[in-house]
Amino acid sequence: MADTTLTREQILEAAEDVLRRFGPAKATVVDVARALGVSHGSVYRHFASKVALREAVTERWLERAHGELPAVVDADDPAPQRLRTWAHTLHRAKRGRALDDPELFATYLVLVRENSHVVRASLDELVTQLSRIIAAGVAAGDFAADDVPATARAVFHATVLFHDPAYAAMWDDPETGRQLDAVVDLILTGLRPR
Amino acid sequence: MADTTLTREQILEAAEDVLRRFGPAKATVVDVARALGVSHGSVYRHFASKVALREAVTERWLERAHGELPAVVDADDPAPQRLRTWAHTLHRAKRGRALDDPELFATYLVLVRENSHVVRASLDELVTQLSRIIAAGVAAGDFAADDVPATARAVFHATVLFHDPAYAAMWDDPETGRQLDAVVDLILTGLRPR
Repeated sequence: MADTTLTREQILEAAEDVLRRFGPAKATVVDVARALGVSHGSVYRHFASKVALREAVTERWLERAHGELPAVVDADDPAPQRLRTWAHTLHRAKRGRALDDPELFATYLVLVRENSHVVRASLDELVTQLSRIIAAGVAAGDFAADDVPATARAVFHATVLFHDPAYAAMWDDPETGRQLDAVVDLILTGLRPR
Repeated sequence: MADTTLTREQILEAAEDVLRRFGPAKATVVDVARALGVSHGSVYRHFASKVALREAVTERWLERAHGELPAVVDADDPAPQRLRTWAHTLHRAKRGRALDDPELFATYLVLVRENSHVVRASLDELVTQLSRIIAAGVAAGDFAADDVPATARAVFHATVLFHDPAYAAMWDDPETGRQLDAVVDLILTGLRPR
């Protein structure tokens, strides 16, 4: 491949593939360059270090995993429905990744642990999405919340069982979807104005 | 030590100590017997196998970790207060173990993973305790719940962040107690009758 046409996206794609094949402990920038047929200098022109490349791979994975959520936040449905759909969409996205490609999922569990600041930013973005849904619900009279960001964080914390990869082993239980609904029911009743 | 006076509790105590010192991967029944100054046959008279011994050690650890909870369930306080105290008591018990003796805690994380049926029984007992608090609240008119056991499970699921050892690394954050209160507020509002 000619170095001049090498894109950031191509490098990230190749890096993901190398990480999955060699494992996060062994994969190197040289492996990524070799997979692309370029020099490792070409990779370093896009990513200053191996650390920067792994961070970018992690960021891309999280962006894709959470890709359907903005449309849910911006939907025309009433806020209670949006909150429920948001929780199920996030659960399904994580569950799908864990069950369909366990090897890649295990790779990302390692990357997520080593790039905790990237993950924190991503989780903060999810809490911000919940804040927008809850604020819309308050404005429409569907929800009552004194402190919207704090309430959004509590809702996020109350649903970790259904989106935190730590629980991936539980998600092939067919009861999981119903259990998420039970938690969402409790949350929605808790948010209803009196 | 004379074999005839050897008690089950002494063996469990020694086994915990051996597990902590040698690590769960290396500790053997012979190590436990040696620590007690008895033959391994004496240990096997109380525990049929190494597996049975490790299960019993795990059970004992969980019983101690959850030891303060029955008194909270049976207290005279109104159910909403009992539910809040129960959640904080469980959180504090787990947090204390994780932060005060991280080595033993890490040992138990391994045991807990290999004895998942022992853990499941222990978690079911916790959900039963929550059911009793919620049923008392329904009887007193403090709570509304159509299906008490399902509601208890949802409350348990909504609070995993504060009692599941998977989150132990988060618990030295001084915000954690307040975050648990925010989730409990949401739950208690969700349980209030209308």
